Amino acid sequence: MATVLGMNQYGKAETRVVRIHRDTPVHEIRDLNVSTSLRGDFERAHTIGDQSMVMPTDSQKNTAFAYAKVHGVDSIEDYAIALGKRLLKATPAARQVQVRVQEYAWDRIGAHSFVRRGGGLRTCVVTVTRGDARDEWDTRVVTGVEDLVVLNSTGSEFKGFLKEEYTTLPEADDRILATSLVAKWRHTGTDVDWNASYEAAITTLLEAFAGTYSRALQETLYVMGAALLDSQDALAEVRFSAPNKHHFLVDFSDFQVDGLTNDGEVFIAADRPYGLIEAQVIRDDAPTAGDAWLAEPGFC
Amino acid sequence: MATVLGMNQYGKAETRVVRIHRDTPVHEIRDLNVSTSLRGDFERAHTIGDQSMVMPTDSQKNTAFAYAKVHGVDSIEDYAIALGKRLLKATPAARQVQVRVQEYAWDRIGAHSFVRRGGGLRTCVVTVTRGDARDEWDTRVVTGVEDLVVLNSTGSEFKGFLKEEYTTLPEADDRILATSLVAKWRHTGTDVDWNASYEAAITTLLEAFAGTYSRALQETLYVMGAALLDSQDALAEVRFSAPNKHHFLVDFSDFQVDGLTNDGEVFIAADRPYGLIEAQVIRDDAPTAGDAWLAEPGFC
Amino acid sequence: MATVLGMNQYGKAETRVVRIHRDTPVHEIRDLNVSTSLRGDFERAHTIGDQSMVMPTDSQKNTAFAYAKVHGVDSIEDYAIALGKRLLKATPAARQVQVRVQEYAWDRIGAHSFVRRGGGLRTCVVTVTRGDARDEWDTRVVTGVEDLVVLNSTGSEFKGFLKEEYTTLPEADDRILATSLVAKWRHTGTDVDWNASYEAAITTLLEAFAGTYSRALQETLYVMGAALLDSQDALAEVRFSAPNKHHFLVDFSDFQVDGLTNDGEVFIAADRPYGLIEAQVIRDDAPTAGDAWLAEPGFC
Amino acid sequence: MATVLGMNQYGKAETRVVRIHRDTPVHEIRDLNVSTSLRGDFERAHTIGDQSMVMPTDSQKNTAFAYAKVHGVDSIEDYAIALGKRLLKATPAARQVQVRVQEYAWDRIGAHSFVRRGGGLRTCVVTVTRGDARDEWDTRVVTGVEDLVVLNSTGSEFKGFLKEEYTTLPEADDRILATSLVAKWRHTGTDVDWNASYEAAITTLLEAFAGTYSRALQETLYVMGAALLDSQDALAEVRFSAPNKHHFLVDFSDFQVDGLTNDGEVFIAADRPYGLIEAQVIRDDAPTAGDAWLAEPGFC
Repeated sequence: MATVLGMNQYGKAETRVVRIHRDTPVHEIRDLNVSTSLRGDFERAHTIGDQSMVMPTDSQKNTAFAYAKVHGVDSIEDYAIALGKRLLKATPAARQVQVRVQEYAWDRIGAHSFVRRGGGLRTCVVTVTRGDARDEWDTRVVTGVEDLVVLNSTGSEFKGFLKEEYTTLPEADDRILATSLVAKWRHTGTDVDWNASYEAAITTLLEAFAGTYSRALQETLYVMGAALLDSQDALAEVRFSAPNKHHFLVDFSDFQVDGLTNDGEVFIAADRPYGLIEAQVIRDDAPTAGDAWLAEPGFC
Repeated sequence: MATVLGMNQYGKAETRVVRIHRDTPVHEIRDLNVSTSLRGDFERAHTIGDQSMVMPTDSQKNTAFAYAKVHGVDSIEDYAIALGKRLLKATPAARQVQVRVQEYAWDRIGAHSFVRRGGGLRTCVVTVTRGDARDEWDTRVVTGVEDLVVLNSTGSEFKGFLKEEYTTLPEADDRILATSLVAKWRHTGTDVDWNASYEAAITTLLEAFAGTYSRALQETLYVMGAALLDSQDALAEVRFSAPNKHHFLVDFSDFQVDGLTNDGEVFIAADRPYGLIEAQVIRDDAPTAGDAWLAEPGFC
Repeated sequence: MATVLGMNQYGKAETRVVRIHRDTPVHEIRDLNVSTSLRGDFERAHTIGDQSMVMPTDSQKNTAFAYAKVHGVDSIEDYAIALGKRLLKATPAARQVQVRVQEYAWDRIGAHSFVRRGGGLRTCVVTVTRGDARDEWDTRVVTGVEDLVVLNSTGSEFKGFLKEEYTTLPEADDRILATSLVAKWRHTGTDVDWNASYEAAITTLLEAFAGTYSRALQETLYVMGAALLDSQDALAEVRFSAPNKHHFLVDFSDFQVDGLTNDGEVFIAADRPYGLIEAQVIRDDAPTAGDAWLAEPGFC
Repeated sequence: MATVLGMNQYGKAETRVVRIHRDTPVHEIRDLNVSTSLRGDFERAHTIGDQSMVMPTDSQKNTAFAYAKVHGVDSIEDYAIALGKRLLKATPAARQVQVRVQEYAWDRIGAHSFVRRGGGLRTCVVTVTRGDARDEWDTRVVTGVEDLVVLNSTGSEFKGFLKEEYTTLPEADDRILATSLVAKWRHTGTDVDWNASYEAAITTLLEAFAGTYSRALQETLYVMGAALLDSQDALAEVRFSAPNKHHFLVDFSDFQVDGLTNDGEVFIAADRPYGLIEAQVIRDDAPTAGDAWLAEPGFC
């Protein structure tokens, strides 16, 4: 018997890059969490401790900071593509790089003053693969959102489901539907106005969530995914990971208070366990993902 | 030697109450995290296990849910006052109750659809003490905000400080100033439009933060506190707990790239350690706090 | 009207100091999270931005690192006392300093190799106040433990409690009792073998928890506090903050399976809400705490 | 254009099952976090809201509790296999089920009393696929550990690495090596003494970590993986996800203290960013994983 190295990647995770654009009297801020991973011919680093082909993760971090200046951050996708190509160029042993970025949004409260906004983190995953020729790159871009917490206070049912020995859930005609959405959508190319595309995508997702009568979270996600693909031709697929954040109607029937009823008005927001619905919606003629999803955290 | 019971309180923490107001075609949502603590003559529960005077924490939770219906949630302060009085009335052994509420804000995206907003949690701490006569209550209300993350990208210095053997910090003429603010302000009475007061307070705090040239976070906090007291006569004091969220300028000088400079443009947002500034600003003729701050988490 | 500065303190929080003692062939490790706060005559820093009397929090951090070498870390209490005195000496405007330390424990797996242990963080809060004479100090030491998660699978009841309109909890003859304990105990002096005292205190607390039939968590805490005070003469008081980590018996009665019963065997561990019991047990002739608890996070 | 449903799965996540075995005078406790996901022919639930083939996630939760009684929890692997088969049997539309379990360990402090241990969570991922015949199952088992925090205080270097324009890291002859290990290993069959195998695996991993001179974390992981495969013939592969928890030597050179040096004694434990090393070590004649890793969180 012998053991061999299989898949492997390494990089610097969660570099917290804050870029202030000061060129104009009114500052702009981009607040990023950047992670990079290199993949390629690094076997000797694992098997005999040879680091000669290894760009240190410290240097990857340095490059992430430098490129926030050299290239700037017009959009996280644009920045991640430039950073990824630089890391590949500087590391001959690397065949592929993945750059993952989360962006925290800020609202302006003054010329140089900001308050952090909630309502979802913008994300991207950019995978760049070295081609045969110099300066030939295969670049895949996945844009997404995390922690987008949405809730419908009516317009949701769950009934007609499979029953067996351990079924105790009553059917529900009118319930709260809520989730903390993680969604990611894959672009077919890179000739994209990334900021405009993102804003439009969020609008489409929220409108579809708000406008869909739901017979299950699965159905709502499918409608959201189809709406997003319909709205932008240059998207190939959407993936969702959606915890069903249960809101249980509180039972008032045992309280000794005359006439006290709970007609869909008072709920307990539960923590655990939670339903977890994961699904992919694909444009049926879309090109395949290649390595774009490789080594992604989770289904989505 | 003998041991005796000292201070004590008990209650139910973090009851997640969601109240949907469905009276009109457009639903309203109030999303709360409610904690209650009873104080009083509960010594026998500790020393001989006698529960006869103890309202179970489970009943406190039930009451929190019921009062979201019975009383409603026009504001968290109003709801907390009503809930606190009910708990005192129902528990003869209790001399005092404290109700602490955090509120998660939601933005509307449809008639019955919402997306959770970030940008600070509204909080209140209500302390009700039983008086000598029936239906006589001393009610103290503290309103606040948590997780209000603000940043000035310029207009902040830190210099002229004390130097000794272990000082290595260079003086800074122009730095980023950022904090995740916790603030609490004490009302002198209860005849208050709680929602209007809160909105005005947040505006005042943000304007003072954005509009103040800062020679230290201490100075900024003091200005914010004084502005808040100036803006609302019915406030007695303000307390702040403000981590100095350090943003360090990244050093580009060792990079082998001609002409690459970092002129206040690229920063690393650090996690730990962080400065922690805590201060109280008081109206000099304000009545004292009494028990209103008793057993509060932290300085603030 | 005028506004004035009230209570205030500032310092560096959560400096992660790791000290390797390499004097012997077998290394020792001390892994600390250190926070310091200075109190005193710092009003001008708040009101007019004068930093001349302010030791920067950065210097406090530097001193925390330096003293891990200069003084060493035989125990966190000993280290905190030395660090506190140094900070006071170096900062003439400071009247008082508080040093708070958490220690992560490690188990040895080799001469220079360790695996982190769970089972509770050791903590201390040391408050040093400047006296009238040079090198005269008032030193108060509070030792404690956090995240000590303990569970009794039987020997706990809860019944005979107060009933009112919103009571629905059934009485329980035999339930799980579990908590994630925070405890702190105040020493009357500083001539203490800190490490031996801590180890003995944990043993006493665990034995009292395991050995006490519980009619409520309140009773268990009181017994634990009294046992600790009984076991060490040099302790003045104990404070507890104990979430009642509810384990609810899962209801099998609606399952369509013949003979399936749940006789205290299967529970769901709930997250929120949770009961929260806070109590202080005092030696009745103990000296008072003075400022030792000032500005402490929480009741405990 | 048309959109179609791609990959999809659904289930109940993080059901907190606590099982007390009370058959003997000394109780045993198993404390689990259980997640289940069903995969199969559920397209109509997504596209037209038809739930007739959908076992509710609530029923999956009920089954997780019931099987803790019906089947018991001798090991998490054994329990997960039984639970997975039950869910498949009860859901004709499901082709495959994945059961993921985390186990919290407890140490005994009395006949019915326990204190929670730290030092790593045991995990398993069990994937059961329906075969062609009744009661024919393909069962894949992956065992693992999370949050196993280990540290070598010497015996680690990092030098000879690639240099380019953004390299500033000095070479290190003697540094701290620390990680919070996530490891998973795939069994080739199911005829395994799961508890004995797990204990032996942890011992092997810790010994390899402590006993290996490290020229990079990559090399240490490879040695650990090879040692684990060598030690148990019935393992096919190991996967690691290992954050490089940086401990930076604190620079004392700017302190104004004569003779103060830092000879590998005082470090700051950094939070972010961190290196992230991910690698797979395979027995070269091992059968492939099939669907066993499908939809796993992360690389590992």
